Amino acid sequence: MINNPLQLLLNPGSIATVGAGNNPLKMGAIQALSIVKDGFPGKFFPIHPTETKVFGYKAYPSAFDLPEAPDLVMFVLPATLVVKIMEDFGKIGTRRAIVITAGFREIGKEGKLLEEQLKEITSRYGIRFLGPNCMGIINSELPLNVTVCPLSGKPGLLGMASQSGTYITQTLPYLQQKGIRLAKAISVGNEADLELTDALEYLGADPQCKAIALYIEGLKNAGRFLDVARKVTAQKPVIAQYVGGSEAGARAGSSHTGALAGPDYLYDGLFKQAGILRVDSVEELYNQGWMLASQPPLKGNRIAVLTNSGGPGTAISHTCNAGGLDIPTFSKKLQTEIRQYLPPHGAAGNPVDLTFHMDAEVISTILPDLLFKSGEVDGMVVHGLMGTGFMKAIHPHVQELFGGISSEDFISQFKRDLTDSLAVFDRYDLPVALSSFFGREDNFTDVYREKGIPVLDGPEKAARSMLALYRYRLVRQRSLYQLPVLPPVSVIASQLIKAALAEGRTVLDEFESKQLLAAYDVTTVEEILTHSEEEAVKAAIKIGYPLALKGCSAEFAHKTGKGLIHLNVGKEEEVREAYRAVMEAAGQEIPLLVSKMITGERELMAGLVRHSSFGPCVLFGLGGILAEAFKDRTFRLAPLNEAEAKEMLQDIRASELLGPYRGMPAVDQDQLATVLQAVGNLAMLHPEILEIDLNPVIISGANPVVVDALVIIDSPVGR
Amino acid sequence: MINNPLQLLLNPGSIATVGAGNNPLKMGAIQALSIVKDGFPGKFFPIHPTETKVFGYKAYPSAFDLPEAPDLVMFVLPATLVVKIMEDFGKIGTRRAIVITAGFREIGKEGKLLEEQLKEITSRYGIRFLGPNCMGIINSELPLNVTVCPLSGKPGLLGMASQSGTYITQTLPYLQQKGIRLAKAISVGNEADLELTDALEYLGADPQCKAIALYIEGLKNAGRFLDVARKVTAQKPVIAQYVGGSEAGARAGSSHTGALAGPDYLYDGLFKQAGILRVDSVEELYNQGWMLASQPPLKGNRIAVLTNSGGPGTAISHTCNAGGLDIPTFSKKLQTEIRQYLPPHGAAGNPVDLTFHMDAEVISTILPDLLFKSGEVDGMVVHGLMGTGFMKAIHPHVQELFGGISSEDFISQFKRDLTDSLAVFDRYDLPVALSSFFGREDNFTDVYREKGIPVLDGPEKAARSMLALYRYRLVRQRSLYQLPVLPPVSVIASQLIKAALAEGRTVLDEFESKQLLAAYDVTTVEEILTHSEEEAVKAAIKIGYPLALKGCSAEFAHKTGKGLIHLNVGKEEEVREAYRAVMEAAGQEIPLLVSKMITGERELMAGLVRHSSFGPCVLFGLGGILAEAFKDRTFRLAPLNEAEAKEMLQDIRASELLGPYRGMPAVDQDQLATVLQAVGNLAMLHPEILEIDLNPVIISGANPVVVDALVIIDSPVGR
Repeated sequence: MINNPLQLLLNPGSIATVGAGNNPLKMGAIQALSIVKDGFPGKFFPIHPTETKVFGYKAYPSAFDLPEAPDLVMFVLPATLVVKIMEDFGKIGTRRAIVITAGFREIGKEGKLLEEQLKEITSRYGIRFLGPNCMGIINSELPLNVTVCPLSGKPGLLGMASQSGTYITQTLPYLQQKGIRLAKAISVGNEADLELTDALEYLGADPQCKAIALYIEGLKNAGRFLDVARKVTAQKPVIAQYVGGSEAGARAGSSHTGALAGPDYLYDGLFKQAGILRVDSVEELYNQGWMLASQPPLKGNRIAVLTNSGGPGTAISHTCNAGGLDIPTFSKKLQTEIRQYLPPHGAAGNPVDLTFHMDAEVISTILPDLLFKSGEVDGMVVHGLMGTGFMKAIHPHVQELFGGISSEDFISQFKRDLTDSLAVFDRYDLPVALSSFFGREDNFTDVYREKGIPVLDGPEKAARSMLALYRYRLVRQRSLYQLPVLPPVSVIASQLIKAALAEGRTVLDEFESKQLLAAYDVTTVEEILTHSEEEAVKAAIKIGYPLALKGCSAEFAHKTGKGLIHLNVGKEEEVREAYRAVMEAAGQEIPLLVSKMITGERELMAGLVRHSSFGPCVLFGLGGILAEAFKDRTFRLAPLNEAEAKEMLQDIRASELLGPYRGMPAVDQDQLATVLQAVGNLAMLHPEILEIDLNPVIISGANPVVVDALVIIDSPVGR
Repeated sequence: MINNPLQLLLNPGSIATVGAGNNPLKMGAIQALSIVKDGFPGKFFPIHPTETKVFGYKAYPSAFDLPEAPDLVMFVLPATLVVKIMEDFGKIGTRRAIVITAGFREIGKEGKLLEEQLKEITSRYGIRFLGPNCMGIINSELPLNVTVCPLSGKPGLLGMASQSGTYITQTLPYLQQKGIRLAKAISVGNEADLELTDALEYLGADPQCKAIALYIEGLKNAGRFLDVARKVTAQKPVIAQYVGGSEAGARAGSSHTGALAGPDYLYDGLFKQAGILRVDSVEELYNQGWMLASQPPLKGNRIAVLTNSGGPGTAISHTCNAGGLDIPTFSKKLQTEIRQYLPPHGAAGNPVDLTFHMDAEVISTILPDLLFKSGEVDGMVVHGLMGTGFMKAIHPHVQELFGGISSEDFISQFKRDLTDSLAVFDRYDLPVALSSFFGREDNFTDVYREKGIPVLDGPEKAARSMLALYRYRLVRQRSLYQLPVLPPVSVIASQLIKAALAEGRTVLDEFESKQLLAAYDVTTVEEILTHSEEEAVKAAIKIGYPLALKGCSAEFAHKTGKGLIHLNVGKEEEVREAYRAVMEAAGQEIPLLVSKMITGERELMAGLVRHSSFGPCVLFGLGGILAEAFKDRTFRLAPLNEAEAKEMLQDIRASELLGPYRGMPAVDQDQLATVLQAVGNLAMLHPEILEIDLNPVIISGANPVVVDALVIIDSPVGR
């Protein structure tokens, strides 16, 4: 028994519907019909003010007239009536609800008020609910379907949770065409109570779901999502599409369900951190989700490509290879074995190209068996398994030569028993993706899909589906997640922040910022804050030349281009000159920071940003002068454990810089990871910190040294 | 009349087939059948050694028995027989051929010999031919179809040329399902004579083709392809997929048709230079090709999104927006007009979301008209136009409530006359892309596709199809192509190269390399080559400090990390020290290059590479220390005109660096373009130059200065 409110919601013993009558052209009626027509095995109680029977079932005027409190109640009546009737059900003891009805938060002020009332009532009675403004749920195993479209075919393996109802309702006939079967599906609507994250958690725990697909327009609480997703992806693959990352996407999503979008780069980091595979279209979500759900995991990177045509074979090989998979050239021995089944102009090396030919046994059974048996491959992509689809296509032309044979009679000659082929794909615990330009009208496509082998309608799609297994393999190879252990709060750091806030400041100056970092063991440049020319000279002698001299004041948080920075200062005379120049540039006496001059050709950056639904996020990227032009950055939610921090290092495009690079030693990645972890920890331990900007972090030898730092703070009250 | 050998090949008055008999299960027979069954209006002459009739047509034992020389002959008989019979046709005067037969170059040595014989015979008789190892042609207007699959529906608008036969044959039923109609299609096979470029040129000139799709595994002569493609893309859109750019893709392609693949980055540059839109899958090739062929050009960037569902509306908005299109928020006035047709929980701002509702008139006619009329949009993407598909899906559930009505009777009630809707889409000369999860089984999808409005089976696909129009708009906005004018050959440069080759060298030293560049007006750093310590000191005084001192010898082409470079040399004493240090590091007396020390935070690179099928290509990218880690580079075929050189500058990820950037002035793009043009010109004027490597090109102030240069040469004989 899964300890999640959705367990009962998706597995009720009895359901009441409120608002569905006998007019089958009303959406509410069609949804209620799906319950009874798709074979829900429990009790069905229609509530209706006037009808005595709905779909032949006894109808009840109100909740209080029911013989028992149903496990679940579904609302399809106008928004203004929902709250009152929800309370009735609360009173009789119903504890789960689905509110299909729209007209709540998404319509503005009035609806928002209604939604607040709904939350108040449900929370008073302990009712957990989906919606409002959702399209319902599917449990293909029970079965239970409350969506407008019929459920058909056997129970599926793919779990789905969606912030758009369409993707679990209007698309059902489409999915059926494609042979993609949902295990359980949940439309979350406005998420007034149960959220996408609850759905993910439930599907993660549900043994029927072998993989999970998520359609996301915006998350309310990315941190909780991450916690849940991390656990789920350690057990089963999760794939997601996020569409809120552009200006128009964010605006569209918010007008739709009022979802809270956020920058694309934060979601990108979140998905990586959570081990979620990201895709860019709903078709990929379904296709690759189905591949992940139906196929065994990929145990290595070696893929066999088997085809009846050069073009698709080349496209599959290229797409797999470009995505990281190997298309190994087969051993001489295996090639010789293969070649006996090929025409002279075929190819045996991998891809194996039979070229166009009509005998399907070789491509459907003999060669797959040979390839899997060889031990030289970990997975297979096949294009060109086809039968009646092609024959149907050519029938009009050949009909006459076959004495006017009918399409049906003609085709029936080419129906193949695919038992042997299916047995081969079943015998080896290795994944297969098929590609065909023929849909369900082709008996091959139909049979393979029915048996749970994905048949994609394009070679690149089959290749990308195999790549999804490869991507999940990389996720599974990550070490077990370790909860980061936060260090004790530094008293020095707290006092620094408190003092600045007390002065009404929101900026810590460079020296303070670095003290904050040093309090958490980050290596910053050796430096002394001085308050007079003589102090500066003394500090210079103490630290030793060359030096970097910088005016240091919270008033001048951004120093570049203002004459406040003097680098490569080599002697006392220059120190004095620089001191005077800085004071003149500042127009007042400000402290001068005397720092050891750090040089290194590798300049990186680290930092912290906050976003309302993400909380604090750590940034890592290329720093220095090129930072803005390249925007080579990656983000993760704080706090970070060591493995997460090190993954960030590999996640920038220029990560090659960190290895031994052009005669420079490899960067000390432990130290660099420590900097990133410290940034995250600072935000966790000191909620006053709004932003941190460490740029550049110069790699001196192998060691990262924080050369410049800026911390923005604010009282966290009311944020 | 188009002056291209393919004109007659695709428009023959008479065709002979060689090898096709009456066995309709042989591929050759099926292909020949397509000619007669798909309505070829000319004469058909089967050549067959034994049959007297083929498909009811009189058969002839040989070419010499024919009543006339056919315009075209098609071979489907075994490879070894082709050459002999080709000669017969040459003798009787046939001048065009299609060799479907495989078993030539692609099978190795023996086949290669056969192909050479074929070329020799055809060239002797002036026969131009497609193949061998191809799948034939389609001319939907004539009509003429020689592929295995039947042609159906009215003539199309999309021209296609493919290095895989599958993509114009096996995919025909698939394309028919999708409503995509080919105008003319050409499978080029081994390209022993007519090449993909000839096909592109022909389709470019053919008025029936409104857009052209290319499937490419490798080009024999990228330069000629570029010349042709440039002209075509100025007139009509060309879209291409290239799959030879990975190791496996190259291997697969070459085993297939022996095509000559090349690095992905060269093809990327080639496509950009040619104005060709690149895609990554054959589905995109077809979908976006069809969109480009069927829809009017996009005249601005403002797209209206109209939907019956939030999810697809959000996905469309996000995809369009992320790709560069605007989804403008509509004016208050327009929103008010729209809102009268929406339910309260609909959205009018853009996307316009009707939410799920059954009356199709609003979404199919009223709102499209309102939006187009408003003048606020340049194109429209609509999701949710659907009728019988959805009704068919829900029929099993509602049947009983409709008194057991049959599916047909039920659906017929929802058949809508779409005349008004089609009239709206027709009335405005603005592009539309539709998205639906229902295929041809839905009357809306069917009618729109039939009328030439693309209906894509996914919201992102519709958005990407609109983006294809946007991408082509950018191509059309480029200035008219100007043939670059090469400067006269520099005598100094020629002598330098000649002298080095005479010494048996393949490397020009840094000083020589820069002289070569200077001979073509490239600004290089001020410098003097010295041969003794005293000369070095004198040169230092002449140039002025600070200086860069470098050992200069072709023997030490790569100087980094060998103690041969001394930067920031500030006084005579340091010059002397550096001189001695360099000589010691070199282990011999070598010249010392005394150069002005150039500093600048922006380091770029330029260069030249050669590739067998591309010839000389110019490289531009980020230079200096980060170059290897970022690989931020772009390539174009030489020579370059000014506009092409400037496009390269914008084509690196870090192009922002070139604008005014962090207080630095904008780079002088004229000067930088001159460097790139000079690199290309050098290769054109001096074929001995194999490689040029200018790294770094430092931006000093606003001016690019070539600080280091390396030129590799070789006698071009035998290359």
